[in-house]
Order: sequence, then C-alpha cells, then structure tokens
Amino acid sequence: MNIILEHRTWRYATKKFDPSKKVSDQDLETLLEATRLSASSYGLQPYHIFVISDQETKEKLKPASWNQSQITDASHVIVFANTTDFGEELVDNFIENTSTTRNIPIENLKGYADFMKSKLVSLPSESKDTWTAKQAYIAFGNLMQAAAELKIDTCPMEGFESDQYNEILGLTEKNLNAAVVLTIGYRSEEDQTQHLPKVRKSKEALFTHI
Amino acid sequence: MNIILEHRTWRYATKKFDPSKKVSDQDLETLLEATRLSASSYGLQPYHIFVISDQETKEKLKPASWNQSQITDASHVIVFANTTDFGEELVDNFIENTSTTRNIPIENLKGYADFMKSKLVSLPSESKDTWTAKQAYIAFGNLMQAAAELKIDTCPMEGFESDQYNEILGLTEKNLNAAVVLTIGYRSEEDQTQHLPKVRKSKEALFTHI
Repeated sequence: MNIILEHRTWRYATKKFDPSKKVSDQDLETLLEATRLSASSYGLQPYHIFVISDQETKEKLKPASWNQSQITDASHVIVFANTTDFGEELVDNFIENTSTTRNIPIENLKGYADFMKSKLVSLPSESKDTWTAKQAYIAFGNLMQAAAELKIDTCPMEGFESDQYNEILGLTEKNLNAAVVLTIGYRSEEDQTQHLPKVRKSKEALFTHI
Repeated sequence: MNIILEHRTWRYATKKFDPSKKVSDQDLETLLEATRLSASSYGLQPYHIFVISDQETKEKLKPASWNQSQITDASHVIVFANTTDFGEELVDNFIENTSTTRNIPIENLKGYADFMKSKLVSLPSESKDTWTAKQAYIAFGNLMQAAAELKIDTCPMEGFESDQYNEILGLTEKNLNAAVVLTIGYRSEEDQTQHLPKVRKSKEALFTHI
C-alpha cells in the first residue's frame, strides 16, 4: 500500500488514550507548524487555536464533553475556535501581514482588500460564523492528518457543548466560538476500536464521475 | 525540513494550471481512495463527490465560478456536495454498512443508531446543512493534502455560485448542495503566485497554550 493510503488507514478515532504517553515538544511543534500552514479562504485564517496540556483545564472541559475520557487521557486537547461576527479588521490585519510578508505597499493591495470586504463584511452574522467555522475545519483536518503522518493518534470530536467551552476558555469576549476539538496522544492497547475495520461508503456510493 | 512541513509548504492555491497536463488514472485512484477514508462525524460521510474531467461540463461551470480559469484549465474539478435536509435513512444506511463491514447483527447496533438519530434527525434544516457541509470540508481538506503528497497541484475554491452549480449538476433533486470545490492538476510555469512567500498568522497570533 502506498504511504498516502497507509497513513489514512492507520488513523482511527481513538476512543481510549494511554494517559502516560505525551506528545513530545518537537512533534507538537511540527504539528502546530503544519496547522499554521493550512489553507483558508483568501488566506484569512479566521480562527484561533487553543493547545491545552494543563490537566486542571482538561478536567474542567470533560463534563462539557459528554464526559468522554479522551479529554483527560489524551496528551493535548486542541480546541479550534472560529472567529464570530467580524468587521473590516479581519481583512485589514491580513492585508498588513501580506504587505510585510511580500514586501508590497499597502496601497497596492487596496483593490484586493476592498474586494474581500465586499464579499465578507456585509454577510449576515450567522453566515459569517458558518464560514469561519468551515475554515477552522480545514485546519482541524490538516492537523489530524499531520498527526497520522507522525503516528500520533487523534480523536476528532464534535461531541461537546460549545457554550460551556466558550465559558471555560473565555472565548465569547474574544469573539470566538469553540467549533471543533481534536484530542491528540497515543492509543491505549486496550482500545478495541483500533482492531475494527473502517466503515466507509463504497466508491460507487461516494463518487460520480462526469 | 521534515517531509510533513515540506508538503505543506510546497502546496499553494494554484491560480494558473497547465491545461496540457492531466492527473493519471492511478494518481486519481489514490486521491479518491484517500478521500474515501476521510474522518466524518459518526463516520456518516453526509456528502457526495463529483469528479469532473469532461471539458464541456467544466465550460458550463466556469461562468458559475466567477470565470476563474482554474475550472477549465485544471485536469479535474472536484465538487464536494453536502447532503441537505436528511432523515433517519442517513443513519440507517450507515448502520447497515457497519453491520456488514464489522459483521455485527443490526439489532446490536440499534442503541447506537437511536443515539445518532436523537442527535441529528430533529436538528433544524439549516443546522443539518451546516453540519453536513463541515463534514464535506474535512474530506475536501484531506484530498487537498493527499494531492500535495503526490506533488499534484490544487486550488481550493469557494468562489462559485452554488445555486448555479446545483442546477448544472442536478444536485437539488438529489438533496445535495455544492459546498466547496477543489481543482486539481499541475501548475503552469507562468503562475507567478507559486513564487510568493506564504502569508500566515504568526504562531503567537494563532495559538494560545494552556
């Protein structure tokens, strides 16, 4: 099997982590850098990512996560928080970064900035939130995949109360919302899920070729 | 640089594809199999994926894609269409597949099926659509990443009119909606974007460690 499929077959939603095994600082650095390089619409990265290793915080998040043991047993809990209602500053900050990174005068980027603003700033608040959450999902998927490449286990989790996460992590006042969670670490040998064959739609059911 | 970051640095949103270069059948097979293995909430994969190489269809999609040349120049246009308003059949089909794949009697899965149904089926229609679209984004990101591993270029695209896509591809009557598009192929040497440094938030701006 080629390496691309090997990683993706190896990965599974880890239900039981070995709490004694921690992701090394070096591997964590690689994972976060991979995540930082994620694609996003216009490159705006409208989210913030919380990397939680503090056991006390994990204990607080567990009841807000349907009491799933992954939250406290995993090495790190990564919370992807999408930016909620935003204004022109989202674009302005990006343009400033583009100007510096690519050495382009800001005034030469004004047309592009105005185009982005025309597409984004006037959206209804709910559409903004949906759009930023989707961008967070790209980063989330990218981190999950990078972890598999390092043979680091993950559990992608939507089973949590975002309101409670927002309160525990103080997200609301930062215009953020807990969109999705990835726990990372190493599988317990006792996790029987790892031995089960993957359930996936057949090629025929999933793809239409035109 | 390690290989995980190398792929992610190499990748960029390709603005100009070389129309003479096509993705081979073998590479396409790998990409689609990688996509099929994507994680999704409960494993439900609530989406369908259209793999378009037909030039006539691509020509039709181009005006619905803000006339971006990637649509007609790329080797394949991949349209990720999320399932719109769904009922119990989404869960029932998955349970049937699980029963067959894992050789578990359907009745032993009833409790899990009922749990999923209680979480999903009664959601408001708009929440269902948002949730299925997010799952489609995971598959979309996974395909983008797998392509980079094969040094196949991609352009992730949200700049299209989903209503027009739905009409051209006949999605609405299938309870599907065009969520996001990935064009795949090979970059043109003329695409100057490939030489620009990536614009990304700094580590400090993107991550908070707790």
